[in-house]
Parts: sequence; C-alpha cells; structure tokens
Amino acid sequence: MQISLFVDPNRSKTLQRQVVDQIRRMILTGRLKGGDPMPGSRALATQLGVSRNTVIIAYEHLVSEGYLVVRPNLGTFVTDELPDQSLNATPSGSVPKAAATGRRGPGMLDRIADRAFPVQELRNAAAGRLHTDFWLGRVDPEVFPVAEWRRILDLKLRFGHRALTEYGDPQGLAELRRAIADHLGPARGISCTEQEVVITAGSQEALMLIARAAEGEARVFLHEDPGYGGAIHLCARSGVECRPVPVDREGLIVEALPEEPGAMLYVTPSHQFPTGVTLSLARRLELLAWAERTDSLIVEDDYDGDFRHDGSPLTALRGIDTTGRVLFVGTFSKSLSPVLRIGYIVGTAAAARTLGRWKQLLTNGPPWHMQATLADFMESGAFARHLRRIRRVYHDRRDALIAAIERHFPGSEILGRRGGMHIAWRLPDHRCARRLQRQALMRGIGIYTAEDGGACLSPGNDRHRDLLMLGYAAVPEGRIRAAIADLAAIAGET
Amino acid sequence: MQISLFVDPNRSKTLQRQVVDQIRRMILTGRLKGGDPMPGSRALATQLGVSRNTVIIAYEHLVSEGYLVVRPNLGTFVTDELPDQSLNATPSGSVPKAAATGRRGPGMLDRIADRAFPVQELRNAAAGRLHTDFWLGRVDPEVFPVAEWRRILDLKLRFGHRALTEYGDPQGLAELRRAIADHLGPARGISCTEQEVVITAGSQEALMLIARAAEGEARVFLHEDPGYGGAIHLCARSGVECRPVPVDREGLIVEALPEEPGAMLYVTPSHQFPTGVTLSLARRLELLAWAERTDSLIVEDDYDGDFRHDGSPLTALRGIDTTGRVLFVGTFSKSLSPVLRIGYIVGTAAAARTLGRWKQLLTNGPPWHMQATLADFMESGAFARHLRRIRRVYHDRRDALIAAIERHFPGSEILGRRGGMHIAWRLPDHRCARRLQRQALMRGIGIYTAEDGGACLSPGNDRHRDLLMLGYAAVPEGRIRAAIADLAAIAGET
Repeated sequence: MQISLFVDPNRSKTLQRQVVDQIRRMILTGRLKGGDPMPGSRALATQLGVSRNTVIIAYEHLVSEGYLVVRPNLGTFVTDELPDQSLNATPSGSVPKAAATGRRGPGMLDRIADRAFPVQELRNAAAGRLHTDFWLGRVDPEVFPVAEWRRILDLKLRFGHRALTEYGDPQGLAELRRAIADHLGPARGISCTEQEVVITAGSQEALMLIARAAEGEARVFLHEDPGYGGAIHLCARSGVECRPVPVDREGLIVEALPEEPGAMLYVTPSHQFPTGVTLSLARRLELLAWAERTDSLIVEDDYDGDFRHDGSPLTALRGIDTTGRVLFVGTFSKSLSPVLRIGYIVGTAAAARTLGRWKQLLTNGPPWHMQATLADFMESGAFARHLRRIRRVYHDRRDALIAAIERHFPGSEILGRRGGMHIAWRLPDHRCARRLQRQALMRGIGIYTAEDGGACLSPGNDRHRDLLMLGYAAVPEGRIRAAIADLAAIAGET
Repeated sequence: MQISLFVDPNRSKTLQRQVVDQIRRMILTGRLKGGDPMPGSRALATQLGVSRNTVIIAYEHLVSEGYLVVRPNLGTFVTDELPDQSLNATPSGSVPKAAATGRRGPGMLDRIADRAFPVQELRNAAAGRLHTDFWLGRVDPEVFPVAEWRRILDLKLRFGHRALTEYGDPQGLAELRRAIADHLGPARGISCTEQEVVITAGSQEALMLIARAAEGEARVFLHEDPGYGGAIHLCARSGVECRPVPVDREGLIVEALPEEPGAMLYVTPSHQFPTGVTLSLARRLELLAWAERTDSLIVEDDYDGDFRHDGSPLTALRGIDTTGRVLFVGTFSKSLSPVLRIGYIVGTAAAARTLGRWKQLLTNGPPWHMQATLADFMESGAFARHLRRIRRVYHDRRDALIAAIERHFPGSEILGRRGGMHIAWRLPDHRCARRLQRQALMRGIGIYTAEDGGACLSPGNDRHRDLLMLGYAAVPEGRIRAAIADLAAIAGET
C-alpha cells in the first residue's frame, strides 16, 4: 500500500520529523485506521525520496509513542488501541458537539484570549519613529554601570556554586534585604531590618502581591486622580471597588478621603505620578492619622524617590508611621534598570513574611543572579556612587529642559521640578496638549499627554488637557534644547 | 532650653541621623510642641558631645522636611503647621479610636499578616542536618554549565547596551521564545511559533497567570489526586471550586472526570507528580476528547518532561491537540536551575498575547539578562549538549537507586522509573513510610512521604501511606548505595 505523504527538504523541520508528524496526524484524523498496515520502510523511503533510515527512525518513534505496533514477521500496523471517540473528535469546528454542551462559539481558551483589559504601557510603540523621545521612565543606557556590574556578576557565578542551583528564600536573598535596609535609613528615614523587607519582581509584582494579600480585608481601593495606571489597572481587576481621590499642588487631598473603615490607599508621595508634586509634611501626618482613624492600609509607592534635585527628600510615610499601617514599595527600575526586575516592599516583619508566602504561592522567589549581584553592588558602595553620578546628570538635564521651556514657551507652568525623572508641563493659554503631541510626533519628537504617559484620569477629570509629561532622564542636554526649540517652531506655525 | 537627647557613637546609625530621628520622634509624639524654640546648635553640640556641624546638618535636614523652621535673628523653632490630630494619633494602641471605627484588635495589615495558608515548600528546612538528601526537584550544582553560562552572559552584558535599560516585551524576549519553539518540536512534538509562547518566572508564575486569566470562565478547577501542591494551593486561593480526580498506573483516570462544561484541568502527563507514571497515549486522546466535549481547558504541566530514561518521550497533549484547548507549561528549573526563574507557556497565539498582557498587568516582563543568555545558550546548541549530559548522569543515578532498593528491600514496588528526577517507592509489607522517614532523618538521610515531598492528597486518600518519594538527581551513586544500605539497617532494627 502507499500512503499520501509529502516531505520538503527545504523546511526547517527534519525529514524524519515531517514523516512522524504527518503519519500521526493521519491516524488522529482517521485517515489511517486502527489495524491498517503501514508501507514497508524501503517502499516508503523510495516513494518519498529519503533514506531508508529516516523512515525506520520515524516508525520507531511512532511505535514508542504507541501510534504504531510491530507484529513480528508481518510488519508495522496502526495500533488498534486508540479510543474511537478521540479519533472522531479531532476534526475541529464540529457544531453538534458545541450544541451538546449547551455552548456555541469559541472554546474557553479563545474566550479567555479575547478578553480585553487595559494595562500600563511601559514601552513606547512609536519609539522607532522618534529622534528625540521624552517617554517617561526611560533611563539612559549610557549611565548603566556595565563594567562594575559585569565584574560582580562574574564573581558571583564563579563562586556562587550551590546558590546557583538551590531554590532561594522566597522572601528574597538575605544579603540583598540587608543592603536595602541599610540604604533606606539615610535615603528615606526608614529604620528597618532585613526581616521587614520582601524582594519582588519590580514594583508591579509588589503591588500585585499586596493586592492579593489584602483581598477580603480591604473594602475599597483608593487611588490618586490623576494617578498611576499600573496600579489602578491592576486593582481594577481585583474585584475590589476602586475610587479616585483628587490631587492638588500639595499632592493627595487628604480631606477628600472617605471616613469609612477598611480602605487600601495607593499613593506616590515622593513625586506624584503624573503631576510630580511632593506630598507635604502636613498632609503626610494627616494621612497617617486618617489611616489610623479608619483602620486603613497605605501603600506608599516611592515613585521616583531616588531623585530629589532641590532640598533633602522628605522622610517616607513608612519612616514616620508608628502604627504599622504603611507598606513601602521601592524599585531599582529607575535607579539602575527596569530589566533587572527587582523591587521590594518594606512592612512589618509579620507582613513581610506573609507577603513572602504570597510570593512563594504565586510566582516563587526572585532569580538569584541579579539579587546576589545587586547585594554586592550596594554593599560595596558602588550603588551610592552610581546614584550620586546619575543624580548630577538628571539634575542638569532637568535644568536644561526647564530653561528651554521658559525661554520658548513663556507663560508655561512647570510642575514636579523638584525631583524625579520627568516634569509635568502646563502649556500657556490652555493650549491643547494632545494636538501639540500629534504635531511633535510628525517631526520625530515624543511628548506625551498625561494619559499617553501612563496616567489614569477619572472620567470627569478634564483639568489636565493642557498638561504634557516629559521624561528627561535619557535625553542629553543638546537634544533637549533642540527639541524644545523645534516644538516652539511647530507651535508657532499653527 | 535643653532637650532630652542621647547619642551613641557605637551604633551603626550616624550621629547626625540619631539626632534627626530623635527630634522628629519628639515632635511627632508631642513632647516638642508647635512653636517651641530649639536649643542653639552650639549648646546642643556641647550637651551631646558631638561636633557643632553634626547638629547644624541635622537641623537643616529637619527644616527641609518641614519639622523645624528658621526665624531670622530669633533661632530655630518647631513648626506651627503640623496638624494637631496627627500629633495625638501617634501614640499607638489607642483603644478609643479603634472603638470609634467599630473595630477592635489589630490593624488591617496585622490581620493580613496573620492569615495562614498552605504553600508549596521548595526548600528543605531540614537540609542542614542531612548528609544524604533525596529532596525532590534538586538539581546537582556540579552539573550546571557555569563556564559556558558565564561566557554568554558576559558577552550579553558587554554588547547588550540598549537592551540593558529598556523595558522588554512583556510576553518575553523574541529570541528566547523562538529558541523554545525550536526546542519543543523535536523534544515534545509541539509545532509552534514564537507568537504562541509566553515567558514566565518559572512554572509557578505560569500557573498563576493562567489561573488569573481563567477567572470568570473556569467554573471548577480539577487536579490529580495525589497531585502537585504548588498548583493546588494556588488554585485553592483563587476562589474557584477545586475538585480532585484520582490517578492510577496509567495516570489521571479520564473516566472519573465530570461531564459538566467549563472546567480547568491541571495535569502532569510526562511524569505524574508524585507517582511518576506517564499518561498513556490512549488516555491522552480520551482527555482531549473530553476537553472538547465539555469545552474545558487543559493545563499541561510538563513536569520532569526533560528526562525520559527509557524509550522516547510521548508527544505532549499540546502537540496532538487540534482544537486549541491545551496550555503547555514548561520550565528550565529542572533542566538548568530553579534560580533562573524562567518558564514558559505555549498556547494559541491569541492566548499567548493575552497571557502576556496579564503578565504585564501583574508582574511585568521577565528580567532581560537571563532571557538573553538562555536564548543564546539554546541557539548555540549548548542546551541540547547539556541535556544529553545530565540525562546520562541522572539515568545512572536512577539505575543505582533502583538496584539498591531491589537488593535491600525485596518486595518493593517502584513507580515512575521511566523518567524524571525522582521515583515513588512503595515499601514492602505496607510498611509505614512516615515512620521510616523519621528514623532516616535521625541518621542524616532525607527521604519523604508524598505529602512531605510536596504532594496534595485529598482527605480520604490514604492509599499512599507506604509510599516514599526519592529525588536522585543531586545524589552521587556512591551516596545513593550507602544511604539505601543504611536505610535497610535502620528498617531491620525495628
């Protein structure tokens, strides 16, 4: 007998693989039936123009999988033992079956795949078309301490040995937690020990773990308006009611918080996302009093907290909280690189332990290489040196950007200038930010409205139509000056 | 005036930091009140026995934080602008406030921290007391390809440049997805493209993403009994009803699956966890027919699928499914190292895209370094070489273990010998596995009951009291032989 096979030597699949796949498919779809004899290996090899060995190995593979059986002295046959219903089930799109289960349309996996939901966009899809891009959260690849990083990572690999293959502590590497605790004292006024720290895959996983852990306890999720999309989209999908709280020039308006008990509040006190304002000390204290009064939980995202250009940083809420109601979330995505995927939570020791168990349950511990390297990088003082260096770089870029805007766009208001890696720029004369963004894009310059920069605004909130967000950390000063001059020319044309 | 401060030059905190923290605390607790004058810097320096500069810098810090104000020609004062309620709120444990909110007892964060729930234990807490440990899932640190890994990783760091600091594709690095797709064709009979693959932080995150994505679609979560704790604990917390399905010598008993629509089934066909049996081809086909009939989703965890010691591996369910109802979950935790935290899901292209969006929403993309290194490691052929090498090593260790058991414990039954990194050992004469485990522990040998090895058994399931699980991948042959001889002596004593 001959069977209808076809092999193509130019495909990336091996010939043998092609034979296996096609015979299997013929059996599964019923074109070859249980008990059917297979052609001899020599005959099939001749038919296909392949070596006999190719066919023999393919047959052996199908025998080992149970599709074919060898009957000594008789030859090779399709097995009789395949269940009939499977053979009939394989042609897809069989309407009667869908009807039998009372369902129509696509299968469960298709329905899962078809669900739409918003997520934070961290990559700029238009980046390829831009010569100057003020996309938020970008760090300058030129400032990454490659040499130091390579040296430490290589040492870790050479001498890491056991750690290279053993599951680590799901709460995170103790050395790294210790280094973070040591860093947070002087940097944020947080006194904590390594027991109070959990290592996470960046701040996004930190928020996910907190949201999961708080399920059933938090009755409402409160967030800044406008606020950070990454946190708001995440919590919106947790099933808990989400409610916006307005932000003004001092940050979150504490008086606007509800007095009902049991809220989880997400707040960015260091450099509010997106407006860039710093939550004042008076507000910080009011906020802690509110949390105690209402038995609420504050999730303090230290967004951009590493970069304070004027004055000292304010002590974190976690540093002045005395009642254990604050979880502090930090990340190395801005100070080093987002591709490290290392962030952390600082809470009470009990909370950190429980969050570590949630991490174990949901995603397991963080990768060892990066934790070990980062721990040494911090302990050796290289991290502090690196921070000092990039603070100077970002400080100068900020100054260049503000000077250029003030020169070319008199009447602008610039928010969030005191820290961080972006400013919020209110255009003069309530000019439409989206329109300027569109015009700039055509000239290869990326500037962003609050929404396109990753902020969530509540539906009624239209107070930010004249607001643009410009991330300056990855744009050299010359580029900044040229781009703002170009923008002025573009704006003047219209 | 003098204030009651105390500094200790022997503490790790700087003197300046100690001054700042203590003054802040005095203000927050009301011991220093709004408008109070601060002592002069010279006087305080003398009082504390520190340099005047220390006090000046501490004062400046507190001024920048807003706790102190400078009135020219008058001196430094506690700010008037702190809100009263915060000052009163800070002494903790204030019962009247708890009563006012209608709540008593600990705060929300304490309640979150106090919640108990089971998680999979991947580290052996007793490891330090053992000279020979058959803990499951351990890989041998001696076989990790350190030199090759260092070489590739260092190249990536030197020439990676932009990739080092840019957010990556949340679905995972395209090169790695391509390398995985290329690997899965010959290794598992899965024909797929990079579009059908999502990179995850090991198989645990893969399961978490699938469980989240399926919420609202899957009406019941079905799992093997006994089955893998990591998956069962995770799904038990998702709010969906969990139901066990028994396992026999051919794997999951497909006839025992419910015929109602809309289930998500978790199954380990390659090397069932914990029994080690391989799901037969007939059952595989029946399972796919069941999934189509009931419109269910199969989550195929390729547990231990890299190690098939006798015969060829069976084609994965995902490789023979023609209706898009299988999500295949793989990991590099066993073939390379669990500390890489790299796993993946193979589904339809639409499902992979959506799962990538869930990843973006929940934990963001995977770290770049390890993905880029692994992609090159696979493409260069080093991964295939490494697999061949460790298969030989693990094969020989398996043989040594089985021979030792058959010699010292005649009448034993050994399950799951054909593949994987562990065997399930049914003791002769229904001997109590837990008792032998306890006795072995006292002699420094780690052997594990199904439950202690990470399996979940349904409450009524007591068919595995005589079952021990022994992971052999990280134990050299001489150690294996000596340990089993020791066990025989221990067992003979009782």
